Amino acid sequence: MRILILGGDGYLGWPTAMHFAALGHEVSVIDNYLRRNIARETSSEPLFEAPNLIKRAALFKELTGHSIEVFISDCADYDRLAEVVQKTSPEIVVHYAEQPSAPYSMQNRHTADLTIFNNIGTTFNLIWAILEHAPDAHIIKLGTMGEYGTPNIDIEEGWLEVNHKGRQQKFLYPRQAGSLYHTTKVLDTDLLWFYVRTYGLQVTDLMQGPVYGLSTVESDLSQDLMPNFHYDDIFGTVVNRFLVQAVAGVPLTVYGGGGQTRGYLNLKDTLQCVELAASNPPAKGELRILNQLTEIFSVNELAEKIHRVGNSKGLEVTIKSIDNPRKELEEHYYNVEHSGLTELGLQPNFMTDEVLGEMLDTIIKHKAAIDVEKILPRVRWK
Amino acid sequence: MRILILGGDGYLGWPTAMHFAALGHEVSVIDNYLRRNIARETSSEPLFEAPNLIKRAALFKELTGHSIEVFISDCADYDRLAEVVQKTSPEIVVHYAEQPSAPYSMQNRHTADLTIFNNIGTTFNLIWAILEHAPDAHIIKLGTMGEYGTPNIDIEEGWLEVNHKGRQQKFLYPRQAGSLYHTTKVLDTDLLWFYVRTYGLQVTDLMQGPVYGLSTVESDLSQDLMPNFHYDDIFGTVVNRFLVQAVAGVPLTVYGGGGQTRGYLNLKDTLQCVELAASNPPAKGELRILNQLTEIFSVNELAEKIHRVGNSKGLEVTIKSIDNPRKELEEHYYNVEHSGLTELGLQPNFMTDEVLGEMLDTIIKHKAAIDVEKILPRVRWK
Repeated sequence: MRILILGGDGYLGWPTAMHFAALGHEVSVIDNYLRRNIARETSSEPLFEAPNLIKRAALFKELTGHSIEVFISDCADYDRLAEVVQKTSPEIVVHYAEQPSAPYSMQNRHTADLTIFNNIGTTFNLIWAILEHAPDAHIIKLGTMGEYGTPNIDIEEGWLEVNHKGRQQKFLYPRQAGSLYHTTKVLDTDLLWFYVRTYGLQVTDLMQGPVYGLSTVESDLSQDLMPNFHYDDIFGTVVNRFLVQAVAGVPLTVYGGGGQTRGYLNLKDTLQCVELAASNPPAKGELRILNQLTEIFSVNELAEKIHRVGNSKGLEVTIKSIDNPRKELEEHYYNVEHSGLTELGLQPNFMTDEVLGEMLDTIIKHKAAIDVEKILPRVRWK
Repeated sequence: MRILILGGDGYLGWPTAMHFAALGHEVSVIDNYLRRNIARETSSEPLFEAPNLIKRAALFKELTGHSIEVFISDCADYDRLAEVVQKTSPEIVVHYAEQPSAPYSMQNRHTADLTIFNNIGTTFNLIWAILEHAPDAHIIKLGTMGEYGTPNIDIEEGWLEVNHKGRQQKFLYPRQAGSLYHTTKVLDTDLLWFYVRTYGLQVTDLMQGPVYGLSTVESDLSQDLMPNFHYDDIFGTVVNRFLVQAVAGVPLTVYGGGGQTRGYLNLKDTLQCVELAASNPPAKGELRILNQLTEIFSVNELAEKIHRVGNSKGLEVTIKSIDNPRKELEEHYYNVEHSGLTELGLQPNFMTDEVLGEMLDTIIKHKAAIDVEKILPRVRWK
């Protein structure tokens, strides 16, 4: 199949591109290096430098024989995106092309402006590029579990059947996110749902939990094919950040009470989920929403896991609660329906001690590169 | 009080400006003539030409002694809006500065792009201009009843208390609008709700039904102070359009079955509602949502009313159903809670035969100016 990946340089985009190429699909990627630029701007570079996308694709071709066509271009510019869609004529488009950092979106007006107009812009442009140039393509959009926030009722899979005064209505599950970044994903969902029901687009919206991991079958082929591994306060997700703190010998910094509970998944399972969505498309005019996570943990549970595994490797891991820079509930109800991907065949890679241990081993090799200045929160929700 | 009105040249903006100025408030308006430009671009000029905003304000000053300060500037440009907010230091901001036509938003990619980025842009810029330069101001935002769509349960006033599997959660009432324009208002509400709960803004979001009317106390002073009266398919709301059709001797064009049911209100009541919201501000950190309508009618009921009143004036009014250019339910449940404004003291001006008769009399004076080419739908939701 012809697959176009928007945001193909990212933590998820690049492993996804290699995964589909290795399966024999015709893969193209587009990226404007926005995340690399923001990482430099905010002094949040990843633990090890990844070669640029053109070089990574060339190396991947050399090692596996599989091609990935690279477009360095901006999806927020309609003409440039439309040109790539016309050239590649995709059957599937995977949309990761968004500014992905919650703290960056909350830093100031300029970063908020960039986040909202980039993210709505890439989604809006993609909708129109598909309507105009590839109307039968299946859009697979990366949303986030953060769209739902932490309501006091069960989080259902995208939709909520409401019984009210003796009558019934099925709604898009009401969303209330905790950062501007997460709110842009809410706006994306609203927008996709409008265009799906009005123009008959075919969309899968994946509500993904925080991802951890360093290893996929293809990235294991070479250090230079590994995903960008961020451990900073801007781009680093909590598990990756804690593991680096464990290696660096600084306390695992729990924000506030540590009861914040979320659904997590291994990077390998992101690839599996996107592949399952691609091979099982929704109908035309259907917005299919899948909650993409495999296990639920509180921040304290994560810290304790990493404390245990780190100490078993001779690291002296400590845990420290710090003032929560975010505005969020630190104790809350959290029960999430997520059977959709399991029914499609997802075989989870759980967060075992072995998995965490292997990640620690990789990070230990790069210990000298860790910059502890990047770890503590530099942005507060005020 | 110091009141700044965004979109002060509009059908609602200009009468609101005069109303507050006549009450003795210090009123400023900002407008970039976007609606006038789109009206010319789409050949949808109003029934009679309104002088430009500077001339209207000068005439109003001459006739009443009350000043309205005019800024011809673009709220979608942050620096220009921030400059006006700094200069005027408002205690209340009334935000009408949006592209208001559903058909225009559905015409093509360019008009969709203009609508979404103008509307999200003005709202986002206003949020930040208030945060940075007038943090204690009360924002009164014009939303639309169209945000809710036509769900099969009662439409509550902004919020929905959900009982689900034995647990409870109050959500922003789930919204599902029928055009891209209406969807931009859904996005506005999502965005305002995020900034209200995170940064403590003080916001009233008015979910307004379609407005009809030509007359307010101040606009009655001179033909040149009257609101822009649109009867075309792009900007004309259904009652205004039907009245012009009655005068022009062309059939009242009901879209499809005519069972589409909405809540309506008189232009005079828009002024009353905005004034009531202004004198009864919500708390800091509160998003107060009020459903702004006074009576509920189906399109068929409206057509029959205007048929009756028109014929009593010797007009030969006929009614004709045409293919519905929109994608909407033509028969649906519609029961709307709207007690909030009544509790604040709203005294409705109902759609009586007398009110419709007076509107017909005014339109008859301008009969020669009616261009019947503008009336039939030129945009289809496809």
